[in-house]
Amino acid sequence: MKLICEKEKLLLGLNHVIRSSVGRTTNPILEGVLITLKNNEVTLTTNDLEIGMEYVIKNVEIVEEGKTVVDSKMFSDIIRKLPDTDITISINNKNLLLIECEDSQYKLSTMNADDFPTLPTINVEKSISLPQKTFKDMIKRTSFAVSMDENRPVFTGCLLDVKKNSLNMVAIDGFRLAQRVAPVFSDSEDFKAIVPGKYLNEVSKNLMEINDHIKIGISKNQALFEISDCKIVTRLLEGDFLDYNKVIPSDKETRITISKSDLQGAIERASIFSISSQEKEKKYPIKLNINLDNVIISCTSQIGDAKEEVNINTEGKELEIGFNPKYLLDTLKAIEDDEVCLDFGSNISPCVIRPITDEKFTYMVLPMRL
Amino acid sequence: MKLICEKEKLLLGLNHVIRSSVGRTTNPILEGVLITLKNNEVTLTTNDLEIGMEYVIKNVEIVEEGKTVVDSKMFSDIIRKLPDTDITISINNKNLLLIECEDSQYKLSTMNADDFPTLPTINVEKSISLPQKTFKDMIKRTSFAVSMDENRPVFTGCLLDVKKNSLNMVAIDGFRLAQRVAPVFSDSEDFKAIVPGKYLNEVSKNLMEINDHIKIGISKNQALFEISDCKIVTRLLEGDFLDYNKVIPSDKETRITISKSDLQGAIERASIFSISSQEKEKKYPIKLNINLDNVIISCTSQIGDAKEEVNINTEGKELEIGFNPKYLLDTLKAIEDDEVCLDFGSNISPCVIRPITDEKFTYMVLPMRL
Repeated sequence: MKLICEKEKLLLGLNHVIRSSVGRTTNPILEGVLITLKNNEVTLTTNDLEIGMEYVIKNVEIVEEGKTVVDSKMFSDIIRKLPDTDITISINNKNLLLIECEDSQYKLSTMNADDFPTLPTINVEKSISLPQKTFKDMIKRTSFAVSMDENRPVFTGCLLDVKKNSLNMVAIDGFRLAQRVAPVFSDSEDFKAIVPGKYLNEVSKNLMEINDHIKIGISKNQALFEISDCKIVTRLLEGDFLDYNKVIPSDKETRITISKSDLQGAIERASIFSISSQEKEKKYPIKLNINLDNVIISCTSQIGDAKEEVNINTEGKELEIGFNPKYLLDTLKAIEDDEVCLDFGSNISPCVIRPITDEKFTYMVLPMRL
Repeated sequence: MKLICEKEKLLLGLNHVIRSSVGRTTNPILEGVLITLKNNEVTLTTNDLEIGMEYVIKNVEIVEEGKTVVDSKMFSDIIRKLPDTDITISINNKNLLLIECEDSQYKLSTMNADDFPTLPTINVEKSISLPQKTFKDMIKRTSFAVSMDENRPVFTGCLLDVKKNSLNMVAIDGFRLAQRVAPVFSDSEDFKAIVPGKYLNEVSKNLMEINDHIKIGISKNQALFEISDCKIVTRLLEGDFLDYNKVIPSDKETRITISKSDLQGAIERASIFSISSQEKEKKYPIKLNINLDNVIISCTSQIGDAKEEVNINTEGKELEIGFNPKYLLDTLKAIEDDEVCLDFGSNISPCVIRPITDEKFTYMVLPMRL
């Protein structure tokens, strides 16, 4: 095998298929990248059996077709550091990958391409498509809320709930919920699928801020994401996702509207005392005292206390309620609008947060007992 | 006590006296900042008994004089996050520090100012002064080479060797040496002092790129650094520093001159294989094959090998020699000139590296056996 390719083109392809944090496996081939040269195209494939990614670099000068596998991190490290010019890649007579560029020459041990687990053929049963930038935004605004608790694997994923021509993406971790809805093109019947949150973030890396579509296909236990020259296959999580519509309260006792940036700034400051330096494990709640025209945000710990006042518009009852500041802050950071509306029931029922002019998003945070 | 001060002015002062990484002590007052209000000045002092720093903020509106101690990290975190406007600081009737700013109010528990270890009075026996920017540059170009090995404490410091009107700053860690010399003003006799490298980096943070002088005073076991509104006291390291003049070889068998950036780039790339992913502990040397008009830089590990060629100008013998690439790279990064000259003896004697047009710097790196 032998090819000649510009460094930037090769590096771009590698960036598409190489995961930033690869979990170390015991099988080196799962940390490898399969390089396939055929028909003036270089196909780069990685697959750790949980997530597989493939990217096709087109219009490359293929001198001799062939394929091989090398350590993906080492290979991309070398390509990244080489000068910005043409790179020649070939196999030498000792079966080493030879990388040549100006006055640099690298040899990398190879693995047998026949041992590489190529991407499975997905028997797509249902599929949707939507603009790349929309799906990227949906991931950004929901995936932060997935659970990190591997003991309840189903909540480490985001639910993709497709009904007619609408996709609802939902993440929930037992303390909070994030939801964003968007219209999609769909030829198939309604479906639900749960995709691991960390793999959605890998998909997101491959999405651009453009209107070109991503196509999402679902089989019995796998999802296939097709994005122009890139293909990603991930497993799906099995199990019952929470019936999220039932947990979002529809009635409220108190509604406040508030400037998002004022609220965020006040909570960020007040939460200085939430985790005090002397007691790393203990988390103090922040307290919201909702009055008719202001909210007092406070936090008291052993080493001091914070009090912040923000102007608001209140409909309904006054209320005193406590929260873990991290959950409120994560949510506010995921909202771009400048005004938000918070609905409360009692001081033990969840708070529903929505941008004031945007019905696409719904966030919910459970309170902490004071 | 009570003062009113602009946020930026207060934060600037705090940044001068608060160390980025404070070692946790068992005595909370050593992690505190002493705030002293007197004569329209705020004096901020930190002291962990190893290094003490003091900064005076002038022309502040002092409503009531007084002093107190609060946790330095917590206090600076609060000030940093407050809006960019006037801040009022006072003590309330529960002896808490009250920080008020617009709609924010913070209370912080205080410690007894009388228990705070104020900066020791240094009985300055010898002193020098030099431009701040020169001393900052000396620290940058030498302190990276101090030893991290606390078993030989004397080498965790930089030697300040003053002879007549010249300061030689030297760091050495058993594998390499870095030296920079500069003219200084001196009224006292010649002296030597060893200052811990990590504290010199704290001093450096307080130095600006200006010609205004820093004054360095030395007592029996302490150093005092005076920089405009700031004062830093550190302990000195005791023990005999290596006679560095004796270890730098004066004769050479081979001299090469080479483009610094070409050499640095080639070593950076070749060292990809020096630490392979599969054997974290094992360090492979990089090998330099010095020929008459080029140097071949290579590295071979279990997973592959790298070969780089760089044009050079050689005087003397050809040579094959091995190095730990980290030491060569650290040194090259500390040099700003574009051409460097490397002097070699045998393949087991140290390599001396100097910028080609600048006699202020001398670096030395020991080879690794191949």
